[in-house]
Amino acid sequence: MKKLENKPEGFAPPLGDMPATDFRRYGHEIVDWISDYLERSADRPVLAPVSPGDFRLQIPAAPPSKGEAMDEILADIDRLIVPALTHWNHPAFFAYFSISASAPGIFGELLCAAFNVNQMLWRTSPAATELEEVALAWLGQMMGLPAEFAGIIYDTASVSTMHALAAAREQLNLQIREDGMSGRANLPLLRVYASEQAHSSIEKAVITLGLGQRALRKIPTSADYSMNVAALIQAVEEDRREGVLPFCVVATVGTTSTTSIDPVPAIADVCVQHNLWLHVDAAYAGSAAIVPEMRSVLDGCDRADSLVTNPHKWLFTPLDISLLYCRRMDVLRRAFSLVPEYLRTDEADTVRNQMDYGVQLGRRFRALKLWMVVRYFGHEGLAERIREHCRLARLFAGWVEESPNWELLAPVPFSLVCFRACPTVEKESEETRRVRLNKLNEQIMQGVNQTGEAFLSHTSLDGVFTLRLAIGNIRTTEAHTQRTWHVLNEQFKRLSELGLKMTPDANLTHSISAHVELP
Amino acid sequence: MKKLENKPEGFAPPLGDMPATDFRRYGHEIVDWISDYLERSADRPVLAPVSPGDFRLQIPAAPPSKGEAMDEILADIDRLIVPALTHWNHPAFFAYFSISASAPGIFGELLCAAFNVNQMLWRTSPAATELEEVALAWLGQMMGLPAEFAGIIYDTASVSTMHALAAAREQLNLQIREDGMSGRANLPLLRVYASEQAHSSIEKAVITLGLGQRALRKIPTSADYSMNVAALIQAVEEDRREGVLPFCVVATVGTTSTTSIDPVPAIADVCVQHNLWLHVDAAYAGSAAIVPEMRSVLDGCDRADSLVTNPHKWLFTPLDISLLYCRRMDVLRRAFSLVPEYLRTDEADTVRNQMDYGVQLGRRFRALKLWMVVRYFGHEGLAERIREHCRLARLFAGWVEESPNWELLAPVPFSLVCFRACPTVEKESEETRRVRLNKLNEQIMQGVNQTGEAFLSHTSLDGVFTLRLAIGNIRTTEAHTQRTWHVLNEQFKRLSELGLKMTPDANLTHSISAHVELP
Repeated sequence: MKKLENKPEGFAPPLGDMPATDFRRYGHEIVDWISDYLERSADRPVLAPVSPGDFRLQIPAAPPSKGEAMDEILADIDRLIVPALTHWNHPAFFAYFSISASAPGIFGELLCAAFNVNQMLWRTSPAATELEEVALAWLGQMMGLPAEFAGIIYDTASVSTMHALAAAREQLNLQIREDGMSGRANLPLLRVYASEQAHSSIEKAVITLGLGQRALRKIPTSADYSMNVAALIQAVEEDRREGVLPFCVVATVGTTSTTSIDPVPAIADVCVQHNLWLHVDAAYAGSAAIVPEMRSVLDGCDRADSLVTNPHKWLFTPLDISLLYCRRMDVLRRAFSLVPEYLRTDEADTVRNQMDYGVQLGRRFRALKLWMVVRYFGHEGLAERIREHCRLARLFAGWVEESPNWELLAPVPFSLVCFRACPTVEKESEETRRVRLNKLNEQIMQGVNQTGEAFLSHTSLDGVFTLRLAIGNIRTTEAHTQRTWHVLNEQFKRLSELGLKMTPDANLTHSISAHVELP
Repeated sequence: MKKLENKPEGFAPPLGDMPATDFRRYGHEIVDWISDYLERSADRPVLAPVSPGDFRLQIPAAPPSKGEAMDEILADIDRLIVPALTHWNHPAFFAYFSISASAPGIFGELLCAAFNVNQMLWRTSPAATELEEVALAWLGQMMGLPAEFAGIIYDTASVSTMHALAAAREQLNLQIREDGMSGRANLPLLRVYASEQAHSSIEKAVITLGLGQRALRKIPTSADYSMNVAALIQAVEEDRREGVLPFCVVATVGTTSTTSIDPVPAIADVCVQHNLWLHVDAAYAGSAAIVPEMRSVLDGCDRADSLVTNPHKWLFTPLDISLLYCRRMDVLRRAFSLVPEYLRTDEADTVRNQMDYGVQLGRRFRALKLWMVVRYFGHEGLAERIREHCRLARLFAGWVEESPNWELLAPVPFSLVCFRACPTVEKESEETRRVRLNKLNEQIMQGVNQTGEAFLSHTSLDGVFTLRLAIGNIRTTEAHTQRTWHVLNEQFKRLSELGLKMTPDANLTHSISAHVELP
């Protein structure tokens, strides 16, 4: 009889990692499971139909003392985790920015986890360090950025933007790295400018960097929600007069609420004139610039000091990967480099040690997945998918425009549609109408989301509750947008009929809110 | 004849993602390839035998226009990337902190990439949000942390520590979030304290947060490289007298150079007395506290305000995952929460929206891999592996102590051995000896690393070049440490013989350096 030295299959051995036979068996099983999961991504409710705490109650409060069988763990993922996830892979996930991984990107993450290199020094990961440079150069070329831009890969746009602002702060040569900002009576208030529509990450960056919220001056926008440059100039000049020190402007190409595009060429002029660091937030829309006929969305960005774009948003690469392009890598390095003895290497002067360019010392091999995505789809294949998303958005916007019950609320330069239902009621003040429609559209959104067939999110534009339909999933087709349009109209009809049953005297929207039992 | 609507197998279709049949086929192929790669992890040179730029030259300078076959991409990974990687998976990777992923962790990353949920709001990922709470609670119990600690998962310890210091800054109630620190004449210099042996991430945090390097006062250490508490008290009192505002102490359990342990109970007393935020950096050694007989390494940490530990360091979980435990989640939230309209949800008051606790809005489902690792190995299985690493380190330290040619340079509380070769030469001044041995040990390290059989790194202790052998790889066995000990002694012998051939008058160390042609 053979003596049992290890636990039976599927369990961890006494020491070491999972046996190779188990690794293959479970690896194949998981790959097959994922394949099914992705193929049936439209079959589950998009938004998890669970309440807070439901999931956690099903998980033991204490960790297991003994190891458990891999079969049990995988069964729990299928049985407990998946039903309590919101499915970003669902082709009718239209909320926020709809992001989606693709197969080569998923494989890239698998390999990244297997290699598990820490890309802090060139020495600790030569191929990873240099492939990051390649990936940055490739995407830079695809977007039409000039070759003077080098860059660095971080996790998220929030972190990229924080580093860009830190570099801009360093560029001031005020010894802030060395002496900080507290206890220095002569240091003026520093100022960053971004539009009212800019992303919250810019405000988080000024908070984190110790500049404070008052260091961010939010510039009003024009009718199309792009930065009003005249207002920017006025703000900068006013600040200068008052002894405030302007040092950075963040322009956005593709804002989160409406994907509006700030007039970067004019903003670049202001930056040159006033010696301000120009950072461009193209986290979402940078990807669109790889489509030849859309390249002009980055007009003026060749004059930026830094630009961020996130392939995990609209380039089919899994979370997380954010590319910060920068013309002044020396400044970024000066802001962050700090080399303790235990990280000194002989080649430090001849290579790019990526840990020198940021807060994080630990760095995953993120370039691999992006490089695999670009190779598998090719520049043309990626452009075709982005072009199709923009076509679907324009198509949807057309349906909205053609219907008397709906209206567009912002231009559609990319793949996001901002709209609302707008049924008319006679003899209504503008304010009453706004409040009524806000409530109605919020209910429509809740109704749609609760069907599980689609997931939309909202924003507020000048106080108007605005539905957002964001297209970005690699599996989204015209059929999914059609079906969602149908579901929206069903909800509109249902809520309109409910509204008609109310007495004219009652507070219509409040009554609906109180009485509707959504499915 | 069937019309060819798609490209042949292995290529991307015109739209959409990779076909399911290809996904399965290539997924299986990659799993098998990884299994082989991990099984043969000891067969490749640990340190990539390449020069800067070698790898990049082999990659086309421009991205492909058309998509390429998956077969070609995978072949290039095998042919180009792997030979130019430093293999952190090699069981004789003893440099820095030796980190390693395990199979359940790799599977966790694969599933994370497939789900691709953005865990910013509870609503966008209920299971992910709640599993993060579970994972934090499980590891907290395993380490013996009191239940009052809640927490949050970030990418790296550098980011965790930066957030902890930001919370400490917020706790001052000086309106720094709102008003920043520049242009405020009445704001005193703020001070953070950490030992001279503390990690560079603390200095990076004060730089980033706008506190500046002078905000960090480095406290001398005792003979065992742990913080000298008397010196800390003296520094705090001196600062107070001089109008500086002390607000935070960072204590380290397991410093990077030597894994020394600061006296946390005594430091906690100082923090209570002076009302300072106590942050504990247990990024590496926190994992050791899951071993019942080692739990005391975290003595006093129950009184900390925050504590960071990184399962990607010594808990067999792939990069990146860093857990910040915090008793004052309300302060952390106050420091960072910022909710734009497009991220408002009805349930915001009743759930933990994890985006409220940090810079990053985008968050990967990192808890999944940790949860899978803990379940597969169990608490006991993980403890057994860490215990074994500590045993191997003590064994190696014993060999060093028994040999007249080598000496230990620091205590060995965990799995790191600090040592050097120390051959004697008659009639030598202390300084000459230090310089000679520094050079010799640097050459020994280079010699070992260039064999490709093992990879060691170094540190500097009181000006002494110190070899570091860090054990943390799940595949490391006694045989690997034995073999490395042998290779070290071979290098010692080779360099000693070379040294004997030199004329006694010549500058010995310089001559060796100039003449040795390392293999």
